[in-house]
Amino acid sequence: MASIAGPEIERLIQLLGKVPGLGPRSARRAALHLIKKREQLLSPLTDAMQMAREKIITCETCGNIDTLSPCTLCRDARRDETILVVVEDVADLWALERASATNGRYHVLGGVLSALDGIGPKDLALDQLVARASSGDVREVILALNATVDGQTTAHYITDLLSPYGITVTKLAHGVPVGGELDYLDEGTLSAAMRQRTAL
Amino acid sequence: MASIAGPEIERLIQLLGKVPGLGPRSARRAALHLIKKREQLLSPLTDAMQMAREKIITCETCGNIDTLSPCTLCRDARRDETILVVVEDVADLWALERASATNGRYHVLGGVLSALDGIGPKDLALDQLVARASSGDVREVILALNATVDGQTTAHYITDLLSPYGITVTKLAHGVPVGGELDYLDEGTLSAAMRQRTAL
Repeated sequence: MASIAGPEIERLIQLLGKVPGLGPRSARRAALHLIKKREQLLSPLTDAMQMAREKIITCETCGNIDTLSPCTLCRDARRDETILVVVEDVADLWALERASATNGRYHVLGGVLSALDGIGPKDLALDQLVARASSGDVREVILALNATVDGQTTAHYITDLLSPYGITVTKLAHGVPVGGELDYLDEGTLSAAMRQRTAL
Repeated sequence: MASIAGPEIERLIQLLGKVPGLGPRSARRAALHLIKKREQLLSPLTDAMQMAREKIITCETCGNIDTLSPCTLCRDARRDETILVVVEDVADLWALERASATNGRYHVLGGVLSALDGIGPKDLALDQLVARASSGDVREVILALNATVDGQTTAHYITDLLSPYGITVTKLAHGVPVGGELDYLDEGTLSAAMRQRTAL
């Protein structure tokens, strides 16, 4: 491949191929499309990436990413500072915000405990979480972690960690997804939905 | 969405979503990944795109893209200038080069005739093709166009266009793809493969 289109284009294709969602073939398509749409797409995207590279930082309070620290969410006085929503990753924070699922503050762990991947408590923002949760303002910590083995292990670990402080610790409900069909659901979800049934 | 992560990240996500292969959801994943891998991916990719924006031009001879015009392929004295391979798009040129399918020179049309899309002969690099093909050096024009209706219409149009110049005009063979199974092939391909059968 190296000689087909010159090293500049090859390098662009190779780097585009590392973006999640693009493989080697779609990276070539993407590179060609970008070069064809130089003014409409390549230029503004390059500028946006330049901006991201220079300006985007991690919020020192919650671990969110923004151009400010503390971030826009941490600065927003309308948000309830008695509720702390713990998420694994910024992507989960975004998902909850898109759903307008909570008006609380966030705390991004930066991962979950994983023996397989060698991720222990020291690799996560747990000290900061304990500091924030025990500061006196927080009444409830909501563990909005993925319903995976590692996510649930982390949830139990955090529950133990916070038990000395007398804070209510809750987690997301398991159940039937809205619009979901029972026939397609796994047994674990179905029994959880049955156990956690609510009154009509 | 606009208020979740600040306008800079939203703009990055929105522009990434216009890259072929990335939709709105994968654009968010891609943006987060880029921001997390700032040094390993975001920085070099931004530089590569900056380079592409500034340096990559269209070859005035063949329509390929490169940092040079004439491009590296047009400058390569080892390539056979008696053969002119006509392709719809730079992506097709790359595909033929990856396959080392030909040692000829290329001519990129920049599209195919399409009544539906309003693409007529004036929108394609046909005058340049006639000029190159009739210059005296070219013995054979290979039409490496897609086996679509528009591709084949364009192939017939070019054949008519070149008929006054006494140049051999050929097209790619139809047939069974290497590794392909007859049971999964369409009837058109099967009958073409039968008609164009070769001696063992």
